[in-house]
Amino acid sequence: MRVVLEEEVLADNNSSAKFNRDLFEKSRTLVINIMSSPGAGKTTLLEKTVSALGKEFSIGVIEGDLATEKDADRIRAHGAQAVQINTNGGCHLDARMVAKVLPEFDFDKIDILFIENVGNLVCPSGYDLGQNYKVAILSVPEGNDKIPKYPVMFRRTEMVVLNKIDLLPYLDFDVNMAIEDLEGINPDSKMLQVSSRTEEGLDEWFSWIRQAYTRNQVQ
Amino acid sequence: MRVVLEEEVLADNNSSAKFNRDLFEKSRTLVINIMSSPGAGKTTLLEKTVSALGKEFSIGVIEGDLATEKDADRIRAHGAQAVQINTNGGCHLDARMVAKVLPEFDFDKIDILFIENVGNLVCPSGYDLGQNYKVAILSVPEGNDKIPKYPVMFRRTEMVVLNKIDLLPYLDFDVNMAIEDLEGINPDSKMLQVSSRTEEGLDEWFSWIRQAYTRNQVQ
Repeated sequence: MRVVLEEEVLADNNSSAKFNRDLFEKSRTLVINIMSSPGAGKTTLLEKTVSALGKEFSIGVIEGDLATEKDADRIRAHGAQAVQINTNGGCHLDARMVAKVLPEFDFDKIDILFIENVGNLVCPSGYDLGQNYKVAILSVPEGNDKIPKYPVMFRRTEMVVLNKIDLLPYLDFDVNMAIEDLEGINPDSKMLQVSSRTEEGLDEWFSWIRQAYTRNQVQ
Repeated sequence: MRVVLEEEVLADNNSSAKFNRDLFEKSRTLVINIMSSPGAGKTTLLEKTVSALGKEFSIGVIEGDLATEKDADRIRAHGAQAVQINTNGGCHLDARMVAKVLPEFDFDKIDILFIENVGNLVCPSGYDLGQNYKVAILSVPEGNDKIPKYPVMFRRTEMVVLNKIDLLPYLDFDVNMAIEDLEGINPDSKMLQVSSRTEEGLDEWFSWIRQAYTRNQVQ
């Protein structure tokens, strides 16, 4: 299934998000929008995910960055189709940018599409891309105060991945406080603790994706 | 010297930035706009700076955050005057927000004003606040690719502080590559290597501030 874009689809973010969502539902593609600060580990988590799940699922990735094709290249090295969007200074992806690159995928063949947003803990949270799930990555070196300080992001996610837990011995980060802060601001969101580097906790992340995929097939 | 704001000052960012700059020049206040990703260590660096230089200079701090008074409280605990701006979801400070809080300072008594921007490696770079210097903090755990991936920020700074160098033994970060990337994109910018946590390298940062202050008095 290849996408044809009509002009009205691109009229505004809501029209584009609806177009994207309708397409994803029709093709039963699970779509996950991954957001975080720069350097929290979005691309590394996706590299590990593509490596681990690439035989079970056909995976596509959209990479959002201000500049460079670096992240798409990293994903392609693991065998998944990756399309790079350069926002040329823009601080987030919007549904129109996503809609415009959808024709590059064959949706009969894509089970899961990850959208890696621009590294930014503020702006991406305001833009519906038509995804099934919004995942925020928080990394241990960013410190304990980020959930209350960036409430707009953490209030709207279905899942928070706490990454770089291998650095916990070297830093003052209180995991329980982070869990409590998230429960206070967004009781429906879960938190997984992982290290993409050491792969600790990644099995739980993969299980969550498998369950989300299955739920999406049944609905 | 206390500030009186007229309505036309707030007409747009350029008018407000000019108003701020004129005031800072008249009072010979050195003003440094500090920008970085969330969690790169802006507030910790400022805490150490206020502690170390607070007897030499009268220091004021403006703290920009989406929500909470946490950062201003941290600065106040070290004896400096701190004024918190909450952007209520806004992804950067602009010159108007800064102009509006300037009446809270007595500029006859402020030698150095630090403005800690919202944690965001994209949006703050586009807004002149009327400062003398723009400093970007990059932290080791964010990884080696940030300078080419966020060129808009690093192209416009006078100084980059590479923070959290105490974590270099635990991470794959190539300091020389970061220096080369910065030279390639912005040959006029310097890079200092520090750890606010262990205080390694901070003396160079303090020296740079002292020299900037002296230059600003002479001009």
